Amino acid sequence: MRRFTESDLENFGTRCFASTGMPLTDACVVSRALVSANLRGIDTHGVARIPAYLKRIRAGLINPRPEIRSSSPMPFSTIVDGDNAMGPVAASIAVEACMRAADTLGIGAATVRRSNHFGAASVYTVPATARGCVAIAMSPGAPSLAPHGSRAALFGTNPFALAVPAGRYSPWSLDMAASVAARGHIRRAAQEGRAIPEGWALDNEGAPTTNPEAALRGLMLPFAGAKGSGIAFMVDILAGVLAGSGFAGEVRDWNVDFTGPADVGHFFLVMKIEAFMPLGQFESRMETAIGRLKALPPAEGVEEVTYPGERSGSTESERRRIGIPLGNEVLRPLAELAAELGIASPSPTL
Amino acid sequence: MRRFTESDLENFGTRCFASTGMPLTDACVVSRALVSANLRGIDTHGVARIPAYLKRIRAGLINPRPEIRSSSPMPFSTIVDGDNAMGPVAASIAVEACMRAADTLGIGAATVRRSNHFGAASVYTVPATARGCVAIAMSPGAPSLAPHGSRAALFGTNPFALAVPAGRYSPWSLDMAASVAARGHIRRAAQEGRAIPEGWALDNEGAPTTNPEAALRGLMLPFAGAKGSGIAFMVDILAGVLAGSGFAGEVRDWNVDFTGPADVGHFFLVMKIEAFMPLGQFESRMETAIGRLKALPPAEGVEEVTYPGERSGSTESERRRIGIPLGNEVLRPLAELAAELGIASPSPTL
Repeated sequence: MRRFTESDLENFGTRCFASTGMPLTDACVVSRALVSANLRGIDTHGVARIPAYLKRIRAGLINPRPEIRSSSPMPFSTIVDGDNAMGPVAASIAVEACMRAADTLGIGAATVRRSNHFGAASVYTVPATARGCVAIAMSPGAPSLAPHGSRAALFGTNPFALAVPAGRYSPWSLDMAASVAARGHIRRAAQEGRAIPEGWALDNEGAPTTNPEAALRGLMLPFAGAKGSGIAFMVDILAGVLAGSGFAGEVRDWNVDFTGPADVGHFFLVMKIEAFMPLGQFESRMETAIGRLKALPPAEGVEEVTYPGERSGSTESERRRIGIPLGNEVLRPLAELAAELGIASPSPTL
Repeated sequence: MRRFTESDLENFGTRCFASTGMPLTDACVVSRALVSANLRGIDTHGVARIPAYLKRIRAGLINPRPEIRSSSPMPFSTIVDGDNAMGPVAASIAVEACMRAADTLGIGAATVRRSNHFGAASVYTVPATARGCVAIAMSPGAPSLAPHGSRAALFGTNPFALAVPAGRYSPWSLDMAASVAARGHIRRAAQEGRAIPEGWALDNEGAPTTNPEAALRGLMLPFAGAKGSGIAFMVDILAGVLAGSGFAGEVRDWNVDFTGPADVGHFFLVMKIEAFMPLGQFESRMETAIGRLKALPPAEGVEEVTYPGERSGSTESERRRIGIPLGNEVLRPLAELAAELGIASPSPTL
């Protein structure tokens, strides 16, 4: 493992994406979304994905120079047509529209159609907390999850994320996949040749498996049966059916399906805390809630009770200070890419 | 099991609640909320609860003649101070305010403070679908759930509900407790002397138990560890911290704690589909999504793949037609109550 500064990785990613003809500002938005995920420890959604994203852009399946159009049927609502842009580019426009609506009306919501994988959902929710807002983000993935009671894939692992400000604590941030485990963890286990725990997945014949390769070819299981399945369907409805983008099996797997655009949708909602309570009062109550949680006696084998987003928050502080650690399995493909593009590889800080 | 018509049970419940001095319209709202739960098969939240609610009103811990005040800090937002009203009374005022805001602005949200247990969460979300809306409802319960990583209760089983219109299908409706199982199921198992499955609960020393009585005195476990725990905390934040009502352990158990008002909060959000897409188009896309789900091959031992709310929807159609079945364990206390109040017991249809 070597460590890299946030700005070095951001610059590297920006150069990579700009090499496809993407405007520099868009390349920077995409690169920032990936590095933000790394900063918070969500390394499955970080710079490791640059080569695969580039491959898809180069295959003509993501539009590096989209003409993104927005409309606003009602003052609070925004519809973004991504024109097959990189996910973070279309998503950022939608989140900004929500923020503007929240600034004037107290609330804003946006759907995005014809977009692509937007990375880690919490990348879009956590920043809103600094502006005194609750933020929600969701986006359906390619079919990989067997709905409760079935043995065939229909939904993606469909992340649902919600964040709120937490006063002197780092933002409270829930970011969960509807599967028992995030697909990125299985992909990473496959890259590293590790087995996955039982109960995470079925092979393509519907039998339980601990082989990550078989799991990636097979089916993910929803968490808690009907509950995870219901959350996956909810995400499919708001960020697929309502968004006017792919739903119920239509989203293409950006990583392996090169037959057409992925047609990914997103849904965002941003709401001002002050629409209900002075922000200072809310934050002080959040501090009380978190303080009570952290004071609970830990379960056996647990060192400390933590709140959602706490570990990501402290990882972010640490990585801003001492850099983002990347292993050879991530660095090697990035170095190959750098050589190919004639740009400098990221330089480790130690 | 004998069957009763919806209107007979509603009238009976209304008379019971009116006996406490509650205005007839409020008594009717409460009774309807309970019967609506019965209609949808959520019998744990139905008329079986009348005696316990009456007991709490009579103990002076719920206000039968509240002065409920609403304010609207922003056009979309409503804050309801329930003045310790019955939950359905304060909740209905908040939902109606959300609906009015949605009619004019496309979206409305409301918090409720100083309320009481509001019954089944989907009672407040499903009706909004008939008005072309997505609706969200949540409300924290008394501490009974051990947050992930801890061995002490802090949150309730904190239901989260979301419903959307589904065209020719009955409404799509997710209504889930953050615990592995709803507390009402454990209470019912206790009433019926049945054991509960392992993994649902811990006894009050933190050991796994299948004894429902021990579970009720002990701790509920969140579904899927950190995920269910995160959903419970989310409900506690929006419908407790933000609502200005009890949070993080402060809500009193309406069933057993007679030391003061329960201080329950609620959060509602209602959003017009038409803010993003013509309703007809949305409904036709929902029909496609549900059709695809129902066409999936069922898992072994499963007869039919169903969508969230489907079983409740068909139970509702059936029960409207042939009546609501109630067993002796529910009827006996209702008959005792009827005798005491000098009113007629519900009359079975067969």
